Amino acid sequence: MPFEILQRIRSQQPLVHCITNYVTANDCANLLLAAGASPMMADAAEEMEEIGALCDAHVFNLGTPSVQRFHAMEIAAGAACRSARPLVLDPVGVGCSAFRRDAAKRLLERFPFAVIRGNASEISTLANGAVAQRGVDADAALEASARDVYALARKTGAVVVVTGNVDLLSDGVRLYRVHNGCAMMRTVTGAGCMLSALIGAAVAVHPQNPLQAALTAVCAMGVCGERAFGRMCAQDGNAAFRTAMIDALYRLPPEELRKEARYEVEVE
Amino acid sequence: MPFEILQRIRSQQPLVHCITNYVTANDCANLLLAAGASPMMADAAEEMEEIGALCDAHVFNLGTPSVQRFHAMEIAAGAACRSARPLVLDPVGVGCSAFRRDAAKRLLERFPFAVIRGNASEISTLANGAVAQRGVDADAALEASARDVYALARKTGAVVVVTGNVDLLSDGVRLYRVHNGCAMMRTVTGAGCMLSALIGAAVAVHPQNPLQAALTAVCAMGVCGERAFGRMCAQDGNAAFRTAMIDALYRLPPEELRKEARYEVEVE
Amino acid sequence: MPFEILQRIRSQQPLVHCITNYVTANDCANLLLAAGASPMMADAAEEMEEIGALCDAHVFNLGTPSVQRFHAMEIAAGAACRSARPLVLDPVGVGCSAFRRDAAKRLLERFPFAVIRGNASEISTLANGAVAQRGVDADAALEASARDVYALARKTGAVVVVTGNVDLLSDGVRLYRVHNGCAMMRTVTGAGCMLSALIGAAVAVHPQNPLQAALTAVCAMGVCGERAFGRMCAQDGNAAFRTAMIDALYRLPPEELRKEARYEVEVE
Repeated sequence: MPFEILQRIRSQQPLVHCITNYVTANDCANLLLAAGASPMMADAAEEMEEIGALCDAHVFNLGTPSVQRFHAMEIAAGAACRSARPLVLDPVGVGCSAFRRDAAKRLLERFPFAVIRGNASEISTLANGAVAQRGVDADAALEASARDVYALARKTGAVVVVTGNVDLLSDGVRLYRVHNGCAMMRTVTGAGCMLSALIGAAVAVHPQNPLQAALTAVCAMGVCGERAFGRMCAQDGNAAFRTAMIDALYRLPPEELRKEARYEVEVE
Repeated sequence: MPFEILQRIRSQQPLVHCITNYVTANDCANLLLAAGASPMMADAAEEMEEIGALCDAHVFNLGTPSVQRFHAMEIAAGAACRSARPLVLDPVGVGCSAFRRDAAKRLLERFPFAVIRGNASEISTLANGAVAQRGVDADAALEASARDVYALARKTGAVVVVTGNVDLLSDGVRLYRVHNGCAMMRTVTGAGCMLSALIGAAVAVHPQNPLQAALTAVCAMGVCGERAFGRMCAQDGNAAFRTAMIDALYRLPPEELRKEARYEVEVE
Repeated sequence: MPFEILQRIRSQQPLVHCITNYVTANDCANLLLAAGASPMMADAAEEMEEIGALCDAHVFNLGTPSVQRFHAMEIAAGAACRSARPLVLDPVGVGCSAFRRDAAKRLLERFPFAVIRGNASEISTLANGAVAQRGVDADAALEASARDVYALARKTGAVVVVTGNVDLLSDGVRLYRVHNGCAMMRTVTGAGCMLSALIGAAVAVHPQNPLQAALTAVCAMGVCGERAFGRMCAQDGNAAFRTAMIDALYRLPPEELRKEARYEVEVE
């Protein structure tokens, strides 16, 4: 059962290293602590060999990028691979600049990522080299995303996750559609970054099956969004929602995650 | 009516680029989302040409400065000007070091800013080259600030905003005095940074009149401070207040902003 | 009485400069404001001479380190020493890399720190050059920590603070054991960073006795943790707890700190 993964995070307390943007680093650290993991935020090239080998998983986030941070990612990824520790990529805003596109391309060419998580336009950029033209029809857009997820998973060997109204996950063979979550999650900066960090904790304790690990994290984050939304009063907004979402993970019993997770799977 | 600007932010969802300090970047991003705008926090020189042209407004904040961040501001400002996108400057702590003073001077000489927002001492530093000596009399200090606001607006062509017990705004001809807000706003780090980000969203959707845009943002932030204060219980402090202030903007109907805004205008 | 120190922070509003990690900088700034102090977060070498001389105390935190940030610490420390302003060191993760160990060693050799605060493994690394092997027995581990605190205090001349289930403080002669706090504090990123910032505010207003200053800060933070825990409802988690902890300091009357502080002292 995948949802034991949440329990395993709490018992094993994996050390999850994030090279991440300074906008949401605090939220990612607190979300990891809410899950029962230990965060390690560090991005100096000088210590990436040691930290790359020390930590149980590594999450690379392309927000607020810099030459230094990309350099650190390459060193950490090398050390992580030599220690057989899983890598997660969050290609934040990868379509916004050649700087991010080139860095993502270089990382994906050089290192085997366990999981790549982004929104539809980020994953389309990685799968197609650019955001594919899509109509305004939501169903058509979702099907286009499903094709991107399959394509990028096959191209990279990673499990690929697209988050949106429906979240899609694929290892290139199976495709999961997750129906948890709520629209208010899009009003919080870092909801995606936090999910990527949580995926890092999940693959740290379940590296043999990154698809199940990512599925657990995606369902857990969606359930936490629903629970947080259920706590909102008429005056609460996105800031209270952010707090409630992290708190929901802190309080989420694995057996309730199993009951509340809503997803279906197909095999191409 | 200026308060339609708040509605316009929600319908147009402008992309607001912030080159900002890492202390309050998260709050600025969540405040922009609360307003209905989309935040883009990025400061790598390598991607500033593209992001400068992509975003609808740019907010430069001098907190936690670095040579790299100043360099990024210059590239982004150049691209923004070529695309006719408005610039906002928040000269955080500009009186604290020659490093910040020189950077602010260089930016103001090279680029036309739509709005400059700071506290009384920051605006005095920009207007006079140093903080002018002032007595302890509050009225006299306010009049000195009004002179600085006028002077800096005329010198730079920007709308200048000083926030304090009374907020002052001027385009060099008119002077608005805004009476919204509350003292507890001074106990939250980044209350000023958040206002500057919100001004960025307002000028993005109303670039033809930065004075009206800034007035809307200043009134909105003040009203949110008042509403947040009204929600505080006996054990709440500045951290709950920060959350409540962002939430208040998330929930603020434009027509209530119109009713609760308290300001007067004079023409010199 | 040490607890007047909290009152003095509120009346003197010391300017506390932090060269700190970007993960918890916002929390440290809001905690300083909650205490009544003024935060100044800055780490550019170009302005460290001025800021080093301007601020009332300096807190150096080794989280998310960089060559630039270490360089800034050396300049700020030099300026602070020439102005006789106290220095506080928080050796975050100092055992994780040679990069951090070397930087900490260099700082401790060159500059007189008023206070060093870390967890048991960080202080052991500084005292012994590595984390000493310890059994799983909690009492034995606490005694080993007490030896480290004494040893590092004698070696450096600083007051040394170890935080854990029981907090230990020593100036090399006296040893305080503080029993305030609660386990939930370990689920918040930056609880230690915040305490180090608060110690900075305390030594700023009471530089003649850093042991009493640190004791006040440690007790205050522990009492705030207890008070925050007392406010938690069944659905609250570590994010609500973080907010409540900062708020508790905002609302803490010095006379109640005196009543609720629980500590004992011994002299070796």
